[in-house]
Amino acid sequence: MTTEQERAAIIQHVKELLGDETAQVEELSFLISSLHPADQVDLWRRLPSSKRETFLALLSAEGMARFLQHLPDEDREELLERIPRETLALVLDHMESDEAADILRSLPPADASRVLANMRTALQVAPLLHHAEGTAGSLMTRGYLALHPDMTVREAIAFMRLYRPFADEPYYLYVLDGANRLRGVVNLRQLIIAEPDTPITELMTTDLVTVRPGQDQEEVARLIRRYRLRALPVVDEDGTLLGIVTADDVIDVITDEDTEDMFRMAGVGVEERALSPLKESLRRRIPHLMVNLVTAFISGLTVRAFEGTVAQAATLAVFMPIVAGHGGNTGTQVATIVVRSLALGEVGPKAMPRLVAKEIGFGLIHGTLAGALTAALALIIAQNLWLATVVFGAMIGNVLVAGITGVMIPLLLRTLRLDPALASSIWLTTFTDVMGFLLLLGTGTFLAHKLS
Amino acid sequence: MTTEQERAAIIQHVKELLGDETAQVEELSFLISSLHPADQVDLWRRLPSSKRETFLALLSAEGMARFLQHLPDEDREELLERIPRETLALVLDHMESDEAADILRSLPPADASRVLANMRTALQVAPLLHHAEGTAGSLMTRGYLALHPDMTVREAIAFMRLYRPFADEPYYLYVLDGANRLRGVVNLRQLIIAEPDTPITELMTTDLVTVRPGQDQEEVARLIRRYRLRALPVVDEDGTLLGIVTADDVIDVITDEDTEDMFRMAGVGVEERALSPLKESLRRRIPHLMVNLVTAFISGLTVRAFEGTVAQAATLAVFMPIVAGHGGNTGTQVATIVVRSLALGEVGPKAMPRLVAKEIGFGLIHGTLAGALTAALALIIAQNLWLATVVFGAMIGNVLVAGITGVMIPLLLRTLRLDPALASSIWLTTFTDVMGFLLLLGTGTFLAHKLS
Repeated sequence: MTTEQERAAIIQHVKELLGDETAQVEELSFLISSLHPADQVDLWRRLPSSKRETFLALLSAEGMARFLQHLPDEDREELLERIPRETLALVLDHMESDEAADILRSLPPADASRVLANMRTALQVAPLLHHAEGTAGSLMTRGYLALHPDMTVREAIAFMRLYRPFADEPYYLYVLDGANRLRGVVNLRQLIIAEPDTPITELMTTDLVTVRPGQDQEEVARLIRRYRLRALPVVDEDGTLLGIVTADDVIDVITDEDTEDMFRMAGVGVEERALSPLKESLRRRIPHLMVNLVTAFISGLTVRAFEGTVAQAATLAVFMPIVAGHGGNTGTQVATIVVRSLALGEVGPKAMPRLVAKEIGFGLIHGTLAGALTAALALIIAQNLWLATVVFGAMIGNVLVAGITGVMIPLLLRTLRLDPALASSIWLTTFTDVMGFLLLLGTGTFLAHKLS
Repeated sequence: MTTEQERAAIIQHVKELLGDETAQVEELSFLISSLHPADQVDLWRRLPSSKRETFLALLSAEGMARFLQHLPDEDREELLERIPRETLALVLDHMESDEAADILRSLPPADASRVLANMRTALQVAPLLHHAEGTAGSLMTRGYLALHPDMTVREAIAFMRLYRPFADEPYYLYVLDGANRLRGVVNLRQLIIAEPDTPITELMTTDLVTVRPGQDQEEVARLIRRYRLRALPVVDEDGTLLGIVTADDVIDVITDEDTEDMFRMAGVGVEERALSPLKESLRRRIPHLMVNLVTAFISGLTVRAFEGTVAQAATLAVFMPIVAGHGGNTGTQVATIVVRSLALGEVGPKAMPRLVAKEIGFGLIHGTLAGALTAALALIIAQNLWLATVVFGAMIGNVLVAGITGVMIPLLLRTLRLDPALASSIWLTTFTDVMGFLLLLGTGTFLAHKLS
């Protein structure tokens, strides 16, 4: 049993040995291979580049395969460039076929075919290369165990003993007919506790949830989450089993999709991490920020149209951030709820009339409350009933529009088959800024002589 | 093989039969039991309350157990109130022990003990009740298979055939000594392919990742995600196996934690969904929105302090939303990246100096760029070099402060053992609003005579 502390101590020890010229290669190599690949990755990322080479040289082909499977995409691409193509073929032979396909997809086509030509598992991996990234096909592995419907339990167990097949999903066994069509599934536990003479067809479950290879990975995640599956078979239109997607791959998909949604909502380019170097952060964030600046210019230019009104009734400027800001917060709240409910498959574009109706009700009640409080503030600081009325109206209007927009934009994006999270708070707040300024300063312009 | 369409058709058919007085109970009951519990829940939620009772009456105790496990918390509480306590005991006996404990925890204590007293599995479930919600202990199940270290493979298989144990995690088998201390783990595949006379101790893996029962569920999720585990054993300080947490429970934890983070960042009360009724939305959102309104008042009152300056140089009002808004977007971007990296365990509070240093560098470069563009806008619309200078300085200053604050608030919250996602964009943007107005209107006040 190793605790987190013990693992940290081993990592520290290996790090010191790598810096020590007199260290025994055997000891180092043993210690490194005793680490979980996730810990190896941690260690490797903390090494200076000179030591990284030494570290990698100490991994076996199998060890390298496990290491690469745990390495984040950014580091992986850089590392792959430096591995000779013949070595890479050996390494990929030790990998789950979906991961090997992922790596081949990231290489220049000429390199990929050279590597594939040298791979023992080329026949398993090559068919996966046809599937686009982000689909069920790109997530699936061919590492499943197949049984024949004519087998008995005894024959199935004998078959497994004899071939000791390696499998990514070793718990489920897939029953395929002569044409590789999926007939059913049995699990190992059923196999162990059944009478040896029971035919496989008697044990197997035939009521299966399956997906097509082109289905989006978000849909795959939704099904696995909904039906609490360990693995989901991918079949073509004839029912031929093409591969399976395992639940652990889906945990990664869920994490990535959630990160993407959060970042998009906040207007950040995806894939940035807190520890990304400054140069990378500049490259990733600056373009988004320049777009944001343009949206801020739009808000500013709206005010510009009413500069005369502001000069005449400067108190209106006090209520600019209040009306605009509160509208922005209201819209962002609603949009976040809708984006999340869409992502979890709890709601679809068809619900739009119902959701819009609800937000109108919500906006009228909430707007009246928020408007009354803001109008009270206006009365206190300016003792001007006209100002209070303008502020009251602008607040109700902006909050109402913000709620409706917050519901509609994500749903419209989904209808257009775009990511609802693109309803980023930045666009939404620009909209509520502009609308708030128009309502506040527009009505203020008509009443300017009453406000000062 | 059933497709999504076929499942939808069955659901529709059941719904019609439930409305038909002459329908055969047997047919209905068969059709309902043929549905996956996730689909049963969908169907049930779409029924009028009168039909819901009929539906539930048609479920067996086991069927009801599976149905309850898939029912969202909101609906579950309401339903539990209406099930007689004796029936509930029967139902909970068919549930995974962690889920049964969850339900007992949600009942009034007197009810919980009455139900527990009637449960056959009380001995398995009762120990789980000591663990607080949100800890490893509250997620774990006692439904694991235990082997003795003295067994051979043959004996282990014979043991399983004889007892046919029901298990929530049927793939891993846990090897426990006489004092129930965890010695190692074997999996079913190893058992099937090994020679029958092999001692279990020779097959078992002893290098295990484990957690203590008090550990936070986020940490449990992190370990399962990091080491790609199917199940994580929970042990006490003596190494006694208390239970296991399975990967499917963690998918739910990840989803809930991510939802919570997104909602907190957007200043929404957790647990709201797009389809929540208006009354519930009002109750949940209004308190948050009133807090937001107060933050907007703070921004407004900052402007109030400079009302004279705005009256004298109304063009400053054009740059209020630009300087404040761009600072807010910059800060939200950074905070989102840091909150996510903290949630994924990629970074800790120790990284603060490094991250702050990076944001200072970033802010200087980005601020200069954004400031220059905004100054250019000032020159274009007002042809006033003084105004351009004020705007340039305010933009650099606000962007710099926004970046530093965006890094520091989530890290400080984590240091204080609070949720970093409380660094909600609402507080952050209030801060950048106030800072932006102070910088812009403050320097503007000194130069007011040059600006108009």
